[in-house]
Amino acid sequence: MDFFTACVWAAGIAIGIAAFGCGIGQGMGLNGAVQGIARNPESSGKVTVTLLIGLAMIESLCIYALVVALILIYAHPQAAEIIKTVVAH
Amino acid sequence: MDFFTACVWAAGIAIGIAAFGCGIGQGMGLNGAVQGIARNPESSGKVTVTLLIGLAMIESLCIYALVVALILIYAHPQAAEIIKTVVAH
Amino acid sequence: MDFFTACVWAAGIAIGIAAFGCGIGQGMGLNGAVQGIARNPESSGKVTVTLLIGLAMIESLCIYALVVALILIYAHPQAAEIIKTVVAH
Amino acid sequence: MDFFTACVWAAGIAIGIAAFGCGIGQGMGLNGAVQGIARNPESSGKVTVTLLIGLAMIESLCIYALVVALILIYAHPQAAEIIKTVVAH
Amino acid sequence: MDFFTACVWAAGIAIGIAAFGCGIGQGMGLNGAVQGIARNPESSGKVTVTLLIGLAMIESLCIYALVVALILIYAHPQAAEIIKTVVAH
Amino acid sequence: MDFFTACVWAAGIAIGIAAFGCGIGQGMGLNGAVQGIARNPESSGKVTVTLLIGLAMIESLCIYALVVALILIYAHPQAAEIIKTVVAH
Amino acid sequence: MDFFTACVWAAGIAIGIAAFGCGIGQGMGLNGAVQGIARNPESSGKVTVTLLIGLAMIESLCIYALVVALILIYAHPQAAEIIKTVVAH
Amino acid sequence: MDFFTACVWAAGIAIGIAAFGCGIGQGMGLNGAVQGIARNPESSGKVTVTLLIGLAMIESLCIYALVVALILIYAHPQAAEIIKTVVAH
Amino acid sequence: MDFFTACVWAAGIAIGIAAFGCGIGQGMGLNGAVQGIARNPESSGKVTVTLLIGLAMIESLCIYALVVALILIYAHPQAAEIIKTVVAH
Amino acid sequence: MDFFTACVWAAGIAIGIAAFGCGIGQGMGLNGAVQGIARNPESSGKVTVTLLIGLAMIESLCIYALVVALILIYAHPQAAEIIKTVVAH
Amino acid sequence: MDFFTACVWAAGIAIGIAAFGCGIGQGMGLNGAVQGIARNPESSGKVTVTLLIGLAMIESLCIYALVVALILIYAHPQAAEIIKTVVAH
Amino acid sequence: MDFFTACVWAAGIAIGIAAFGCGIGQGMGLNGAVQGIARNPESSGKVTVTLLIGLAMIESLCIYALVVALILIYAHPQAAEIIKTVVAH
Amino acid sequence: MDFFTACVWAAGIAIGIAAFGCGIGQGMGLNGAVQGIARNPESSGKVTVTLLIGLAMIESLCIYALVVALILIYAHPQAAEIIKTVVAH
Amino acid sequence: MDFFTACVWAAGIAIGIAAFGCGIGQGMGLNGAVQGIARNPESSGKVTVTLLIGLAMIESLCIYALVVALILIYAHPQAAEIIKTVVAH
Repeated sequence: MDFFTACVWAAGIAIGIAAFGCGIGQGMGLNGAVQGIARNPESSGKVTVTLLIGLAMIESLCIYALVVALILIYAHPQAAEIIKTVVAH
Repeated sequence: MDFFTACVWAAGIAIGIAAFGCGIGQGMGLNGAVQGIARNPESSGKVTVTLLIGLAMIESLCIYALVVALILIYAHPQAAEIIKTVVAH
Repeated sequence: MDFFTACVWAAGIAIGIAAFGCGIGQGMGLNGAVQGIARNPESSGKVTVTLLIGLAMIESLCIYALVVALILIYAHPQAAEIIKTVVAH
Repeated sequence: MDFFTACVWAAGIAIGIAAFGCGIGQGMGLNGAVQGIARNPESSGKVTVTLLIGLAMIESLCIYALVVALILIYAHPQAAEIIKTVVAH
Repeated sequence: MDFFTACVWAAGIAIGIAAFGCGIGQGMGLNGAVQGIARNPESSGKVTVTLLIGLAMIESLCIYALVVALILIYAHPQAAEIIKTVVAH
Repeated sequence: MDFFTACVWAAGIAIGIAAFGCGIGQGMGLNGAVQGIARNPESSGKVTVTLLIGLAMIESLCIYALVVALILIYAHPQAAEIIKTVVAH
Repeated sequence: MDFFTACVWAAGIAIGIAAFGCGIGQGMGLNGAVQGIARNPESSGKVTVTLLIGLAMIESLCIYALVVALILIYAHPQAAEIIKTVVAH
Repeated sequence: MDFFTACVWAAGIAIGIAAFGCGIGQGMGLNGAVQGIARNPESSGKVTVTLLIGLAMIESLCIYALVVALILIYAHPQAAEIIKTVVAH
Repeated sequence: MDFFTACVWAAGIAIGIAAFGCGIGQGMGLNGAVQGIARNPESSGKVTVTLLIGLAMIESLCIYALVVALILIYAHPQAAEIIKTVVAH
Repeated sequence: MDFFTACVWAAGIAIGIAAFGCGIGQGMGLNGAVQGIARNPESSGKVTVTLLIGLAMIESLCIYALVVALILIYAHPQAAEIIKTVVAH
Repeated sequence: MDFFTACVWAAGIAIGIAAFGCGIGQGMGLNGAVQGIARNPESSGKVTVTLLIGLAMIESLCIYALVVALILIYAHPQAAEIIKTVVAH
Repeated sequence: MDFFTACVWAAGIAIGIAAFGCGIGQGMGLNGAVQGIARNPESSGKVTVTLLIGLAMIESLCIYALVVALILIYAHPQAAEIIKTVVAH
Repeated sequence: MDFFTACVWAAGIAIGIAAFGCGIGQGMGLNGAVQGIARNPESSGKVTVTLLIGLAMIESLCIYALVVALILIYAHPQAAEIIKTVVAH
Repeated sequence: MDFFTACVWAAGIAIGIAAFGCGIGQGMGLNGAVQGIARNPESSGKVTVTLLIGLAMIESLCIYALVVALILIYAHPQAAEIIKTVVAH
């Protein structure tokens, strides 16, 4: 049973820490973008395009963690064998 | 029983840490936006649009964690089998 | 019994950490807004509108954690079955 | 008994951490406001209004944690059943 | 006995952490205020009023934690029943 | 005996952490004040008054923690009953 | 069984911490890029190319961690032998 | 015996943490004062008076912790009864 | 079995922490580079060359950790002997 | 024996943490003083006097911790009774 | 067996922490170099030479840790004797 | 034996943490001094005198910790009695 | 056996933490040097000499830790006696 | 045996933490020195002398920790008696 318990913990912590760091990272990017646009509104289009590329890159980091979390919950390869063993006991 | 206990802990910590980081991230973006608008009120429309895009991206990170938390509480795939095992004991 | 204990801990820590981070985030936004208004009082209306949007977004992060905390205390789906098992012992 | 112990711990830590973060957040907002008013005393009215809105938002975060803490101490839904079980033992 | 032990710990930590954070928060506000007054002594009245409002708001956060700490020490609702159980053993 | 042990620990940590945070907070206020007076010695009276109000507010936070610490050492309401139980064993 | 438990924990923590750090790193790069483009929109092409090289380098760090995490979940070399041993017990 | 052990630990940690924080706080105040005097030596008298008031306030925080530490070592109210119990065993 | 468990943990943590630090380091380098190019687009070639050298150096640090992690998973020198011992038990 | 063990630990940690914090605090004061003197060598006398007062105040904080550490090692009031009990066992 | 377990842990943590710190250190050096070259492209040769010396020095720190990690995995002097003892049991 | 173990730990940690903090503190002072001398080489004599006074004060903090560490290793007052007891067992 | 385990852990952590801190320290020195050379390329020779002295001093700190780590692995004075005792058991 | 284990741990951690802090401290001093020389190459001699004094002072802090570490490994006063006791068992 410890195994599923660990999956659950690891999934929660992986997505939690990743969202923490990426949230701060996106906030730093966003801070720069809105200050930049406010200073020079004509650059708005170019800044927004670059901002979106960057935010998407950071988002991808968090999605890696989300994918790992979902694999741990739904699709761990040994899960089937282990649950049989547990039930068998 | 440890399993449900772990689900509960992991859900609480995932959403807590994610909200922590995303809250600070959104605060950094918001800080830049309001200072920018105050300096140059004419840029207000463009800044607000960019701000909303960025805040939505950061919000999405926290929602990933919320989704993982809710899966852990309501929809964990092995939960049904495990609760049977626990009851059977 | 460990289960309810864990619910209680997780609820307390989730709301505590989330409030911590969102409080700092809102403080950063607020800092920028009041400094901006003081420098340029004419921008007050636009800044306040943007500030409110941002604060509401950050508030929503904390409310996610509050919702998870309340679910853990009042509406956990396995709580009924588990309390029966505990009483039965 | 562990259950009430956990309620007590969780309540104390929830309100402690939340007050920590919100205190710093309000301090950041207040810092900006008083510096702004000192530079431009004519903006005092508008700044104070915005400051109060922001402080109230941050206060609300801490009050969420306070509410959770008080629920844990006074109004946890399973408390009645659990205390019966404890006494019965 | 663990229960009273936990009350004592939680009360001490709640007030300690809250005082930590609020102390830093008030320090940030105070820093801004005294620098502002020194630069522009004529704004002294308005700054002091705003400062007092802000310090009172931060103080209230710490008082929430103080209230929770005192409830845990003096007025926990199950304390009477629990002490009977402990004595009865 | 664990109970008195916990009182002692909690008292020590409460006053320690509170003094830590309030010391930094007062240091921030003091830093602003002395820099301000050095720049503009004529504002010395007003700055000192505001500084004293602020330091007193921060001091009060630490005194809350001191009060809780002393209550834990000298005046915990269940201490009398508990020591009887301990002696009786 | 501890072995699979450890794989799961290590995978979750590796991807979580890596995403945390790389998210902040990419945020710092993005912050510089959008501020730079806003100041000097003509440099937009060169800045974006450099930004993409840098983000790809940082992304690669996180992908190393992702690869290690996936190896731990799907392709650990001793996993087959160990699961036989576990089943055999 | 745990009781005296805890007194000793709590006394050491209380004074250690308090001295840590107050040392940094006084350092911040002192930094501001010496920089201010160097810029404007005529303000030296007023700055020194304010500095001394502030340092004394911070010192008092550390002295609270010292007092609690000494009470824990020399004058804990239950110490006499507890040592009798310990000896009696 | 503890041995393979430890390999897995150590590999995950080594790559996680290394990616964390190197990600922030590369982000600092990238931040400087894109701001520099934006200010002075003519320097773009030289800056990019220096940036690539630096990023490669930082990347190498993370690759050291990756190599250690892979050695721990695939090529630890005592692994063969130990697994025989484990199987033999 | 735990008692002397705890005295030793507490003494070491008290002086260690206190020296840590006071060292940083004195460093901050010293930084300000030497920069100030370099800018305005004529203010050297007054700055040095103020610096010495401040350093002495910070030193006193560390000496409080040193005194507590020495009391814990050499002059703890219950040490005599406890060592008799230990020997008697 | 604990011995090899500890070797593995220590190797992983040594290289992980060292890469963390050196990655940030190299990032700080790189940040300065690219900003400097962008401001003054003529200095590019001299800056790059100095940068390379510095990066090599920092790299060497990480290589010390790598060497210790590899010694712990491949060449620990007591490893041969210990594995014999383990096998002998 | 725990007693000597604790002495050793406490001595190591006391000197380690103290050297950590004092090292940073002296670094801050040194940073200010060398920058100041570079800006105004004529002030070199006065700055160096003040720097030496400050460094000596910070050094003294570390020496307090060194003294405590050496007392714990060489001159703990109960060491003789305790070692007799240990030998006697 | 715990003894060799501890040697291994301590060696890994000593070199890891030392490389961490010295890496950041060298990075700070390097950052200043390359920015300085870029601003004033004529100073390049003098700056590089000073930089090398400083980097060598910092390197020496890390080498102390490396020496201690190697002593712990290869040349601990009691290692021979202890291994005999272990083998003898 | 715990005793030698503790010596080893304490030595490793003492030198590790001390090198960490002193490395950062020397880096701060070095940063100031090279920036200062770059700005004003004529001050190079005086700055280098002051820098060397300061670095030597910081180095001494680390050497204190090194001395304590070596005493713990080679010259602990009770080591001889304790090893006899251990062998005797």
